[in-house]
Amino acid sequence: MDKTIVVALGGNAIKQAHEKGTNEEQFKNVGTACSAIMNLIKEGYEVVITHGNGPQSGNLMVQQEAAKNKVPAMPMDVVGSMTQGQIGYMIQQTLQNLIAQEGKDIPVATVVTQVVVSKDDPDFEDPSKPVGNFFTKEEAEALAAKERYVINPPPGKEFLEKKMAGYVIKQVKPTGDRPFRRVVPSPDPIRVAEAKAIKVLVDAGTVVIASGGGGVPVMEKDGGILAGLDGVIDKDKAGERLAEAVNADIFLVLTDIEVVYLNFGKENQKTVNKMTVAEAKKYLEEGHFLAGSMGPKVLACIRFIEEAKGEKAIITSLDKVGDAMKGKTGTVIVP
Amino acid sequence: MDKTIVVALGGNAIKQAHEKGTNEEQFKNVGTACSAIMNLIKEGYEVVITHGNGPQSGNLMVQQEAAKNKVPAMPMDVVGSMTQGQIGYMIQQTLQNLIAQEGKDIPVATVVTQVVVSKDDPDFEDPSKPVGNFFTKEEAEALAAKERYVINPPPGKEFLEKKMAGYVIKQVKPTGDRPFRRVVPSPDPIRVAEAKAIKVLVDAGTVVIASGGGGVPVMEKDGGILAGLDGVIDKDKAGERLAEAVNADIFLVLTDIEVVYLNFGKENQKTVNKMTVAEAKKYLEEGHFLAGSMGPKVLACIRFIEEAKGEKAIITSLDKVGDAMKGKTGTVIVP
Repeated sequence: MDKTIVVALGGNAIKQAHEKGTNEEQFKNVGTACSAIMNLIKEGYEVVITHGNGPQSGNLMVQQEAAKNKVPAMPMDVVGSMTQGQIGYMIQQTLQNLIAQEGKDIPVATVVTQVVVSKDDPDFEDPSKPVGNFFTKEEAEALAAKERYVINPPPGKEFLEKKMAGYVIKQVKPTGDRPFRRVVPSPDPIRVAEAKAIKVLVDAGTVVIASGGGGVPVMEKDGGILAGLDGVIDKDKAGERLAEAVNADIFLVLTDIEVVYLNFGKENQKTVNKMTVAEAKKYLEEGHFLAGSMGPKVLACIRFIEEAKGEKAIITSLDKVGDAMKGKTGTVIVP
Repeated sequence: MDKTIVVALGGNAIKQAHEKGTNEEQFKNVGTACSAIMNLIKEGYEVVITHGNGPQSGNLMVQQEAAKNKVPAMPMDVVGSMTQGQIGYMIQQTLQNLIAQEGKDIPVATVVTQVVVSKDDPDFEDPSKPVGNFFTKEEAEALAAKERYVINPPPGKEFLEKKMAGYVIKQVKPTGDRPFRRVVPSPDPIRVAEAKAIKVLVDAGTVVIASGGGGVPVMEKDGGILAGLDGVIDKDKAGERLAEAVNADIFLVLTDIEVVYLNFGKENQKTVNKMTVAEAKKYLEEGHFLAGSMGPKVLACIRFIEEAKGEKAIITSLDKVGDAMKGKTGTVIVP
């Protein structure tokens, strides 16, 4: 039987930092990413794809803000679902076209995906994920006075209860003209709500795009009732839950860098090509991996081996997928 | 084996005309629609859902326009894919919650869907579907001077070749302050690109939401290569292609009115509770059904019986689904 691989595309695979993010630019980037994925399909892997959505949801939020007097803005769960449609469509069409060019008949489909988090997640008491523009002190105070934002609140359950968790502004930089920014909860993903449907498609040989942008964040209330929330789930940690859902053999995390570093940016920095789970945990604990960057990726890989009983997880860059799959570069995490 | 029913929700099932379209309003309306659908699920039907997206894509286009100096606007195919994510998410979560409340275990999933049209469709030569705001003559001329719109162009293939088909402004009202409006192609749907994946899900007992907003409009080029286009496909005609894709037994078109009228609005108007395909064709030819309203719905029902070999098609309103399914009201179209 073919091996199943979950590919987690980084944000730069769809919109690069220096780009405006026109439709043409995004389709071009998706084309490059899909060429790498097409090679995996041609090698016989059953491929499942997940992706970030930071630039796309950011753009939608700018548009919502600009038209807020004419059209009601949507909360972040809905914005997330929109970007799943958008990015899913781009990847789906591009891969379908590459598959058609190869004369193959492999279906591709995007499933709109909710990812379930705990209503008791600590991030609801002290939101951690900065989103959107930076503000001056005056701008932050004006926002708080006019809308329902609170500035630098003390952590506590009251935000969740008052549905305030999505409306916190924090001073995220110690100094500077614009040190304030909106922060939202980034709760830990527990499971993919659409796991069954996704598994049915994968088992039928479909290339599935799912859990985009970390999934639409929902919390589970009594009786299994789901409710969307203003927040963002880390896409690599959500991607690992997706890999669990489809019993993946390999979890491939694509990012800006070719290989993982220890002591990154220091004099004694060195690359690491292979880590056991025990080593990865030790390095993580020692602070080798940044919280907003390599940390969640390594954590997702550890979970994939430990909780999903995966064969191996690989971290590398999009242009090195071929070599990394052969073990020539990248960082592999194994039991 | 359970019968398969495709339900086509009208635009007012998600955002009513008098509403602003806040997230709360839309979820409330979706709740009402899903309660009616839940009754079909409880009766044992295998349900597939499609829906309109007019108000949602209109709102996104207003937001894009308001922020166009900061964020690149997306073409209509991409806007359509965004609304599929948004509305799919709302329906999916609401139905999942209703199913959980019933103690049932039935998966629900939204598939991002492209609908294929012919590159030779006559609507590309003479776009017919008005979208967005009304303009004065001066506003229309200012738009044409600044952007790449053309006003009241003669029909012809050159629009498609110059990728102009999405950038036409026509005088759509004979008089008035603002008689001008953007018109886009509304080509006839041929097939659902993701038919295989959708069928796999339906066969596995999944409630599928697909082809939202008439599907993301794509045309097929040589070698089966798909490309998005600036246009809108009629959601009922696309819903019929979806019904073909899943071998549906029943096609249920939900709209504002409970039953179809002949001579609508005239002194001799009368309701029609049952039409054979031959009768429906005759009435359509005689002009009983408006082009932008009941016309495409009746045409979709005719196709469902003739081309998809369906058992019956029903046109009624959301609040009358139960009675219409029992034949007590609504209009049924049969072979």
